[in-house]
Amino acid sequence: MKKIVSLLFILPFIVAAQTENDSAAIKHFSNEILLHGKGYEWLSQLTRNIGGRLAGSPQMVQAEQWGFGVMKAAGADTVFMQECKVPHWVRGGKDEAFVLTEIKSIPLNVLALGNSNGSGENGVTAKVLEVKNFEELDMRKEEAKGKIVFYNCDFDETNIFTFESYGQSVKYRGGGASHAARYGAVGVIVRSMSHATDNNPHTGWMGYNDSFPKIPAVAIGLKDLTVLHDNLAKNKDLQVSLFTYGKMLPDTIGHNVVAEIKGTQNKEEYITIGGHLDSWDVNEGAHDDGAGIAQTLELLRAFKALNYHPKHTIRFVLFANEENGTRGGKEYARLAVENKEKHVFALESDAGGFTPRGFSITTDALGWAKIDSWKKLLAPYGCTDFLHDGRGTDINPLYTAFKISEAELIPDSQRYFDIHHAVSDVFENVNKRELHLGAVNMAAFIYLVDKYGL
Amino acid sequence: MKKIVSLLFILPFIVAAQTENDSAAIKHFSNEILLHGKGYEWLSQLTRNIGGRLAGSPQMVQAEQWGFGVMKAAGADTVFMQECKVPHWVRGGKDEAFVLTEIKSIPLNVLALGNSNGSGENGVTAKVLEVKNFEELDMRKEEAKGKIVFYNCDFDETNIFTFESYGQSVKYRGGGASHAARYGAVGVIVRSMSHATDNNPHTGWMGYNDSFPKIPAVAIGLKDLTVLHDNLAKNKDLQVSLFTYGKMLPDTIGHNVVAEIKGTQNKEEYITIGGHLDSWDVNEGAHDDGAGIAQTLELLRAFKALNYHPKHTIRFVLFANEENGTRGGKEYARLAVENKEKHVFALESDAGGFTPRGFSITTDALGWAKIDSWKKLLAPYGCTDFLHDGRGTDINPLYTAFKISEAELIPDSQRYFDIHHAVSDVFENVNKRELHLGAVNMAAFIYLVDKYGL
Repeated sequence: MKKIVSLLFILPFIVAAQTENDSAAIKHFSNEILLHGKGYEWLSQLTRNIGGRLAGSPQMVQAEQWGFGVMKAAGADTVFMQECKVPHWVRGGKDEAFVLTEIKSIPLNVLALGNSNGSGENGVTAKVLEVKNFEELDMRKEEAKGKIVFYNCDFDETNIFTFESYGQSVKYRGGGASHAARYGAVGVIVRSMSHATDNNPHTGWMGYNDSFPKIPAVAIGLKDLTVLHDNLAKNKDLQVSLFTYGKMLPDTIGHNVVAEIKGTQNKEEYITIGGHLDSWDVNEGAHDDGAGIAQTLELLRAFKALNYHPKHTIRFVLFANEENGTRGGKEYARLAVENKEKHVFALESDAGGFTPRGFSITTDALGWAKIDSWKKLLAPYGCTDFLHDGRGTDINPLYTAFKISEAELIPDSQRYFDIHHAVSDVFENVNKRELHLGAVNMAAFIYLVDKYGL
Repeated sequence: MKKIVSLLFILPFIVAAQTENDSAAIKHFSNEILLHGKGYEWLSQLTRNIGGRLAGSPQMVQAEQWGFGVMKAAGADTVFMQECKVPHWVRGGKDEAFVLTEIKSIPLNVLALGNSNGSGENGVTAKVLEVKNFEELDMRKEEAKGKIVFYNCDFDETNIFTFESYGQSVKYRGGGASHAARYGAVGVIVRSMSHATDNNPHTGWMGYNDSFPKIPAVAIGLKDLTVLHDNLAKNKDLQVSLFTYGKMLPDTIGHNVVAEIKGTQNKEEYITIGGHLDSWDVNEGAHDDGAGIAQTLELLRAFKALNYHPKHTIRFVLFANEENGTRGGKEYARLAVENKEKHVFALESDAGGFTPRGFSITTDALGWAKIDSWKKLLAPYGCTDFLHDGRGTDINPLYTAFKISEAELIPDSQRYFDIHHAVSDVFENVNKRELHLGAVNMAAFIYLVDKYGL
């Protein structure tokens, strides 16, 4: 009895001391990253020197070699590449579209969707069927034949977390072409997945259903969306011409680039941290996902610089081909299964380099109890939002294979869809402190997971 | 007994229903502002059409007239101006500085501090004493005579809330000139209050102690700070020339611009919402404090558009002359006392137009208990940080006079000191959703204070 009383007496002190140690450790990571972080400099190299780096492009190869070199220089215990087949889509030319009114031809700012087939040099010229959503198209399917379907779909501005709007509307970009082709449409124009105040179109992944003709598909900037809508309101029989040149070439070879810091106690158990190295071809991929790459590399650097010795082996992964194939993430999980690796946790950063607001987490009740006890440790660094069931595209296959706890960094989302997949996703739109503060929170989270499990 | 049991039984349901109503009301404000907000458009007019609007400038007058017109158009019950004397400082010319090495003259990017006296056309040329802080200057005071003191003071990068770094270091900008003049210095160069990655100098308020000579004072961009530091390390006897032309002219007339929505129950009790209309002369004053003005106007618009009838009379105030005199805020409080007005609460937005993170609040224990019960209502809109003892410069005189509860909106602070008082504080650096989301949270806070008191 006496023993129990003593334990009950000292337990709060142990917990308090623990929290104090953890708080000091996290402050240590924070000071290192905010004072000496190189993530921003690396992001500059990746975005300005290499630039857009779609799977299969020469820049993809350059980026892989660059990442390998940075990881070596940052002092990783090992660095290696995982080869994987990646799709090789090329844009093939300058995407164009024109509204043909009776008196003039009005150019529209458009971008072909990634993976879409081009119209070729003769283009596609047809009348336009404007619809708000799939339901309207289904109802008016008889009208679609021989026309260009214009998805003037909503991108809800009232959601505070903008990824919700993206989740609601991205189906028109991903599946809109085949949905329209099923009814005989000859092309589609999709509202950009954005609420930006500029006129940049936003490209992104699309996929064809092999049962229907593979018709051209473009995204349109929001100002020209209004131009098109207004002209259609005046004359529903006007024609639009689309010129795109997209082509899917045979698969080629890409690589995940992987570094490790070996664990001190559970060497054969892996914690994975990563982002994706590829980007769309039309921009520098600064927020998407240069930021995640820079943060992943910065964690490696900071951990080594601080001589931090994790219990588990930590893998830092620059994933290949997230944008138009997810082949890197799938190959990483396939190899993990094949090699009978033991994975315990994975963290991804692929939602931009803006100020961190929290994490989206997939874990069980016990895990959530731990998260609750960590909240006060993360709040001083800006992470106060803890969402459920998030993980991220590249670590999702690992979750499917192992059902481990996973998480994704949640940066502030207000600006993200202004620049996502548009020409404006460039280095200048990333802020150094915001980027590095994301890395601080990732380091803190990894430190806690390594120490206490999740 | 039965009665008490019944009350205890139904109380949670009453509270839950209340919360549900409040939650719905706030969602109503949010949708109105995010879908139909005009704050961003008004900010564009104020910053691009009018521009920098320092007290005493023609743009100050234009801005007052513009604000009056917008308030009228937004449907305020009354709009009026409060005249006040404002200081009239003019920059007078292009601020310049040069490092004079043996082989060349290196230009430095500098800006005279606001309210400082110019060197005149002959400039000030002298050797330089570089110090880290006042303590070092005090220790080396014998060396200061006849020299330009260079405050290479710290701007702590490890603080997560960047206003802490500002609070720690701004004394060198505000009081550095007289502190150096006391020891016979002939000019001062102050590190810009920033951690930006560019080279823009950041101006801002300074004040002279009348007991000492009023020597020229400039802020220096961070890249040129390194140039100066490195050259001094090579040759401590090198000279620097400063050329500034600042001049304080006689006081002139400015105005607070005030609109009201009359209260339905406590008509003679005032809730004040405001920002400041003036800005520095070298930029558009977009974040500082065009954002606060746009949000204040947007609240007025949204409240009228939604036909919201507050219990108290709400005052929307565009304060005059915050930057180099705080005369508007002082006059507002003076008139409130003179007119025996009853004030119950004031809210200011003057920390930038970035994503809202919370509020800094001055209230008592009862007030904090209310704040605690409101946290779950504000969290969905991004406000999760509730700091103590904040109010804001323009409503501080009202606090001094009435000791009422006050608050200030706390936007994300990571980018703020990159642009604060520099040429880069322009419209393009404000994001529409972030600005409007700040207004959403201000509207929610005002709604709760009007309904429940604080």
